[in-house]
Amino acid sequence: MTTPFTTSESTAQKPAGLFISFEGIDGSGKSTQVRLLADHLTALGRDVIVTREPGGSAGAEEIRALVLQGDPDRWSAETEILLFTAARRDHMERTIQPALEAGKIVICDRFADSTRMYQGLSRGDLRSTVDQLHDLMIGREPDLTVLIDMDPEVGLSRALSRQGVEERFETFGSDLQKQMRAGFLALAQEFPDRFVVVDGAHDVDSVANALHSTVMPRL
Amino acid sequence: MTTPFTTSESTAQKPAGLFISFEGIDGSGKSTQVRLLADHLTALGRDVIVTREPGGSAGAEEIRALVLQGDPDRWSAETEILLFTAARRDHMERTIQPALEAGKIVICDRFADSTRMYQGLSRGDLRSTVDQLHDLMIGREPDLTVLIDMDPEVGLSRALSRQGVEERFETFGSDLQKQMRAGFLALAQEFPDRFVVVDGAHDVDSVANALHSTVMPRL
Repeated sequence: MTTPFTTSESTAQKPAGLFISFEGIDGSGKSTQVRLLADHLTALGRDVIVTREPGGSAGAEEIRALVLQGDPDRWSAETEILLFTAARRDHMERTIQPALEAGKIVICDRFADSTRMYQGLSRGDLRSTVDQLHDLMIGREPDLTVLIDMDPEVGLSRALSRQGVEERFETFGSDLQKQMRAGFLALAQEFPDRFVVVDGAHDVDSVANALHSTVMPRL
Repeated sequence: MTTPFTTSESTAQKPAGLFISFEGIDGSGKSTQVRLLADHLTALGRDVIVTREPGGSAGAEEIRALVLQGDPDRWSAETEILLFTAARRDHMERTIQPALEAGKIVICDRFADSTRMYQGLSRGDLRSTVDQLHDLMIGREPDLTVLIDMDPEVGLSRALSRQGVEERFETFGSDLQKQMRAGFLALAQEFPDRFVVVDGAHDVDSVANALHSTVMPRL
């Protein structure tokens, strides 16, 4: 059977790590807030690592390049989900799980909820497939997921202002962004114990303050 | 839900294709017998394509290179199974299924049974994971699987005589080859309606003759 991602007995004496993911539509300010939370926790003396998906380990970055470079239509939604799950498995094994076992706080910019939304919503009704694959090959969720909620019009204009070579996720239209926002909010309702929702519409410092006061009691 | 690999209504009038896979330990003479069967069927006027795994489509060949080149230990067994399943999904979508829908005979050098044996036996007890992943993301077996059965000592010496850059599967020891042989024979017993077993110990022409007389009634 697949090795589950659980704390082994040998690490039972170490301080418990914490796995936090950030989710939200493009342009919601996730990456900035990830950095500010990491700085905040580090200043409080916590051992923090910041990572991201797709990618986050050497092997996962190779898979990321395979998926995101070249013709975006050369993979079907199903093949793409398999490749992202392979990258996530490597990321869990090589980066996230070792850090958690060392008692660190892991902050990850996007995790499985992004696959549930982007592949599950944008390219056919694949949510059930994504979930079954996750249960079979990953088998663990973050301890806490921060959803930065954002009006899609604002998010899209922010995203378009920083276009790069990997702009495929940003070139979806505003209607899709609205579906994504609704999808993320629905996920937050589906998993209320895991999600906290933060309003991303205000200035960066206000969002950070709101986020930190929401997150800190959960640590 | 994942799109299943079934014949669509629009192709119901076309001649039915046939999907044949070849399996066996390294050095069993699979690739030679694949070619001879393809020649035999072509001479009989059948439309045949020959393909192989891992690989068999442009995307799957890229994934093959990612898995087989570089340090062979850089992927865990679980990540490797996900990558091979992604490659198989692409191979099915882009090469095998279109050929079957055009009424062709597809002969494939290795398919999912190789993953069941190599990943399922050689790197932990992952057979159940391989099967669940196959059911979820591939969902179809060959119509006929030819197992070339071979004494591992003979097979290993044949394999070592043709070492190349992708020799990792051949560098396993003879004990593992014995396990593989037993594993393939057990699979043939598990799926008697799908498998035919051909003794690969004789000279090439004798094996080909025995194989063709075994296979032809199944076509």
